[in-house]
Formats: sequence, structure tokens, C-alpha cells
Amino acid sequence: MKDVRALVDSVRQGNRLALGRLLTQVENDTEEGRQALVNLFPYTGSAHLIGVTGAPGTGKSSLVNRLAYHYRHLAEGTPTRRVGIIAVDPSSPFTGGAILGDRVRMRDLTGDPGVFIRSMASRGSLGGLAATTSAVVDAVDAAGFDIILVETVGAGQGEVDVASLAHTTLVVEAPGFGDDIQAIKAGILEIADILIINKADLPGVENTERALRGLLQLAHPTSHPLDGRFDDPVSRAGASIHSGDLPWETPVLRTVATDGSGISDLVAEIDRHREYLQKSGGWTRQERARLESQLDHLLKAELVSRWRKTVSESHVQSVVDRLANRELSPWQAVDMLLNGGRL
Amino acid sequence: MKDVRALVDSVRQGNRLALGRLLTQVENDTEEGRQALVNLFPYTGSAHLIGVTGAPGTGKSSLVNRLAYHYRHLAEGTPTRRVGIIAVDPSSPFTGGAILGDRVRMRDLTGDPGVFIRSMASRGSLGGLAATTSAVVDAVDAAGFDIILVETVGAGQGEVDVASLAHTTLVVEAPGFGDDIQAIKAGILEIADILIINKADLPGVENTERALRGLLQLAHPTSHPLDGRFDDPVSRAGASIHSGDLPWETPVLRTVATDGSGISDLVAEIDRHREYLQKSGGWTRQERARLESQLDHLLKAELVSRWRKTVSESHVQSVVDRLANRELSPWQAVDMLLNGGRL
Repeated sequence: MKDVRALVDSVRQGNRLALGRLLTQVENDTEEGRQALVNLFPYTGSAHLIGVTGAPGTGKSSLVNRLAYHYRHLAEGTPTRRVGIIAVDPSSPFTGGAILGDRVRMRDLTGDPGVFIRSMASRGSLGGLAATTSAVVDAVDAAGFDIILVETVGAGQGEVDVASLAHTTLVVEAPGFGDDIQAIKAGILEIADILIINKADLPGVENTERALRGLLQLAHPTSHPLDGRFDDPVSRAGASIHSGDLPWETPVLRTVATDGSGISDLVAEIDRHREYLQKSGGWTRQERARLESQLDHLLKAELVSRWRKTVSESHVQSVVDRLANRELSPWQAVDMLLNGGRL
Repeated sequence: MKDVRALVDSVRQGNRLALGRLLTQVENDTEEGRQALVNLFPYTGSAHLIGVTGAPGTGKSSLVNRLAYHYRHLAEGTPTRRVGIIAVDPSSPFTGGAILGDRVRMRDLTGDPGVFIRSMASRGSLGGLAATTSAVVDAVDAAGFDIILVETVGAGQGEVDVASLAHTTLVVEAPGFGDDIQAIKAGILEIADILIINKADLPGVENTERALRGLLQLAHPTSHPLDGRFDDPVSRAGASIHSGDLPWETPVLRTVATDGSGISDLVAEIDRHREYLQKSGGWTRQERARLESQLDHLLKAELVSRWRKTVSESHVQSVVDRLANRELSPWQAVDMLLNGGRL
């Protein structure tokens, strides 16, 4: 308990080493990590969570890097913001991608005490990537970081789940992607609060922008996979209505992360989205949805863990044996495990 | 019950309309769907499940299309195989991507009774995309399809989970992707049983192949995210050891899906991987891992559903209120919900 208090105090004082240690505990779901998070939880809720997602090759990491750099070097008179970067790299525990990615970022941001960078190389133990990321976000938030950039790779369900954590979701595209039917299939446009065409100095940027604007027009959101996120979905071409009655028209921005073009416009749009969320009540709804989803994951994990204690491993394995031999269907196996073998 | 028996019989006779109807039931997790799957389950286990994954823009759908066409038009004397295609498109319920994708495929395959195509536009109700896909695969398998191609979009955790269903996982790249650090970060190389460079008529294919072979060399698998899939991981450059003691060296193949180049080599490699799995015992282990994971999802869903019946919705909402107000941490909220409000 004394260790936990010391850890919590260090994290609250913005000690990045302590925060790093805490996150390792959180990812491993240790008792110490839980205790610390319980103590830190009252101090969460003020950071602006920004999800950044998009296909590989669009330059997401460079964009995140550049955004962080921009927040750290705002014009004189503007208060500089502390930035946490969480790179979610779920698929690979060993390719070293996370490490390489960090190194690229580190070049510009290293040594700045107002920047904290964390790569998550695994989904952790909290019952899913989204739940672990949510807990990590809480810790970074409690450590006093004003902006938390959560970067996810790819465009699958896991990424959508993680994006649903964020207050503001940036979807990054690049010239050449928009014209491809695969880009349509990726179908992540509807989670975008801001749509970015990065690498906008490449040829084909006009076509990509036209294609993306066309797709935004096509997207008539009448329902949405993220329960609780869209309380009042309205079918309207080109508009993505995220909160209450106020509409939010998804802007399409061009950036070149490598030279910084378009980044200050992007930061302005992000701030505009924050104001929009606060005015429309979307900020509170989004927070509630995130916490509810985290609660749901933790509940499931706890229910399974409690049930596991009531059955012997050998019984479970014998049921799995019968399942593998096609003597029992998965549903019959569930029935047998939960109702004590009535079959 | 009579309806269920009729449905099961029609599916077993290869009636594609009946199979389509069943899959709708499965995705919605209806009682009829469950009953039918329980009855069909003993007839599963013979199809070769082939996962196809990779970033948007690599031409995955065309490749799947071409593979199916090839299986349907094998050289004389070779028995033609019946092919099921399951396109998992998890992120978009409304962009119409799934429909467009189908139309592209349909051109060559439409009207062939030996081909069944299904787009999954949602994660379904079975407690996750992987669990729903697994149940869909069971149904298509029981309907007598010899080859089941499961195509996933993107490279996130969801895709890795779905890929873990397959006996054989194809990872599709394209020229221009391999040199990018983002491709390294996507980190799906280690789930590849066969690595494909599609669009191999584009410039830069040599660089991409060199980069990918280099990455395969770098990948020293000492651990793996898919529990139970790799029983004997061995650190060896360029080798991906998936089953028992026999090594499987991931081949790198070039294809041009649009004109069919490289497809017969790919089919030969897929068959070689099947033989390898059967010889090494990997086939059985892979099946068991898939069924165990499906069981796990169903168990969780059932445990949650049983618990939900024991608490009132208003109590749950009041706990969520306190959570949203930061009066309770998520862990304290779980404790309160499961232990009856001791806090």
C-alpha cells in the first residue's frame, strides 16, 4: 500500500518514469496497478483524447509526431500543452515495429518533459485492447497530460473499438488510397470527426479528395456500430452527426506531416471539435460511453474468473475434447459447463 | 423444431438460399440459428479454412475472386472444389462497401452453384467478430464447401483474431508497401503461412520482395499472441514454425490477381500447407484452438447474460452515473455490481 501511494504521488507530479512503471502494471493487470488506478481515477477526465487511425502507409506516425511537436511549440502567448502519445500496435509482440516507430518519433520529441510516449505492443490482460487502452489513457490523463493522442494501426474492428474511446477521431488517408474500392471497404470514414489527406504533396491528391468527399456524401448514417456514441443519428449526406442536435460536418484537410504543412489548420479544427463537443454535450456522453465500455469489459473478465474457480481444469478439458471430436457443439459445451453436464 | 429440421436438411443438400437464411439467423444469434448449428455441427471439420488478410489497396478481394475461380476451373481430371467466400467487413454497416465488393466478385462467379459468397457487415451478436465468423464458417463447412476463404480488411487485432481461425493464413502485400515503416508496424507478417506480393506487375516489386524477406529474417518468433496456435515456437530467422516439430518456411509468392499470374503456384502452396498441417498434427491443433476460442466467447456471453438477469437496469445505471462522475473507479464499480454495493 505504501508503494502504491508513492507511485500515485509520483505519477500525479508528472514523473514520467513512474508513469511508465504504472503502465506496465496496468498492462499486466497487477493488484498494484489496479490500486494505483483506483486512487488516480478521481483526477481523470480533463485530457482531450484524440484517436488517430488509418491504413498503413498513410504517414500516421509522422502526423502524430508533428502534432505533438506543434502542441509543444505553440505561438508565444498561447499556453503550451503537455502531450501523451499512446501507439497501439496490437498485432506484433516481436517484429520490433513499436521500437522502430518510437525511434522515429523520438528524434523530435526526445528529452521534452512535456511529452510522454508509450507503445502498447499487446492487448494486455484487461479483457481486450480497448479496455487496456482505456485504463492506460486514464493513467496518462491523471498524470496531467492535456492532449492524449491514441494512434492505432489499420482499420479493423479493434481499431474502431479503440477509436470509440476518443473524443475526437482523426482518420488519415493518403493520395492513391481513395480511388480504390478497398478503401471503401475499409469503411472507417464514418468514425472520422476530421478526415485528413496526408502526403498531400503527392500526385493524385485532387482525385483522392474528390473520392473521399464523394464517399462522405454517400454515407447516410442511419445506424452506427458504436452504441451510445451517436444518440441522434440523422440521415444527411456529407454530415456526420455525433452529438445531440448540433451537426458536425466532417472537414477534409490536407497535410504534409514531413514538412508541417496544414498542421496548424488541423490543430485549429481539433480545438473547434472540442468546443463543439463541450457545447453539444457530446463530451460528457463520449466519456460515459467509454467508461461504460470499460466497465463492461472488466465485468466480463471478473465473471469468467469467478466461474473458472468453480470448475476443475480437467473437467473443462474433457468438454473441449468432446467438442474437438464433434460430439458436442459449442452451445452444448457451454450448457454442459454451466449447468453441470446435463447432456 | 420442424422448421429447424427442414433448414438443416436444405443446408446439408447444398441449398445456397437456405444457407444464406441460416447465416442471417447465426449473425443475429437466434434460437433457430443455434438449434440448426447444433444439428449441423457433427458434419463440420472437413473444409480447408483459408484466411486472407492485408492492408487496403493490396488487391485482396481480386485475389480471393481469382482463387475461387481457379478452384472452380481446375485442370481436367482434377476434382473441382466447392468454394465458400466469407468477406469480413467489420467496420462499416452502411458505407455499402460490402455490396460493392460483392458486385465486383460476382462478375466471374455469379450463377455457379459451387460458389457461395457472404459478406459480414457486422460483428454479430455472438460476443465478437471472431466468434461470429467461427459460427458462420461452421455452417458453410457443414453445407459441404471444401474450401472456405475468409477475407478480412486491415491489420488490427480483430484481423489477427479472425486469421487465427484459419488453417492457412495468406498475408497480401503490394509493391510500395514493404519499404514503409508502417508496413513493419502493421506487424502481421508473423501470422502469414504464405506471404503474397500481389500487383507484382507494378514497379518496385523487387524492393518490396527484398524488404519482406528481410522482415521475415528479422522476425525471430519467441512468443506469439495466438495462444495454443504455436506449440513449439523456435527462434529461427525466416522460419515460422506453426506446428509441432516440423518447420514451415513461409514462402513469398508474386501474383497478379487481375490477370491470374501466379495463382496456380499459390494454389499449389496452399495444398502443400494443408499436407504439412495434416502431417505435423497442426490441423487438429488448429481446429481445437478455434473451437476453444469460440467456446470461450460463448461462455462469456452466457455468463454476462445470466448475471444481467440478477440485477435491475436502474441499479446498473446508478453505478454508471457514479462512475461517470468519477465517484467510483471502474474497479470499484465492478465490485459494487458483483458484490452488492459494499462500498
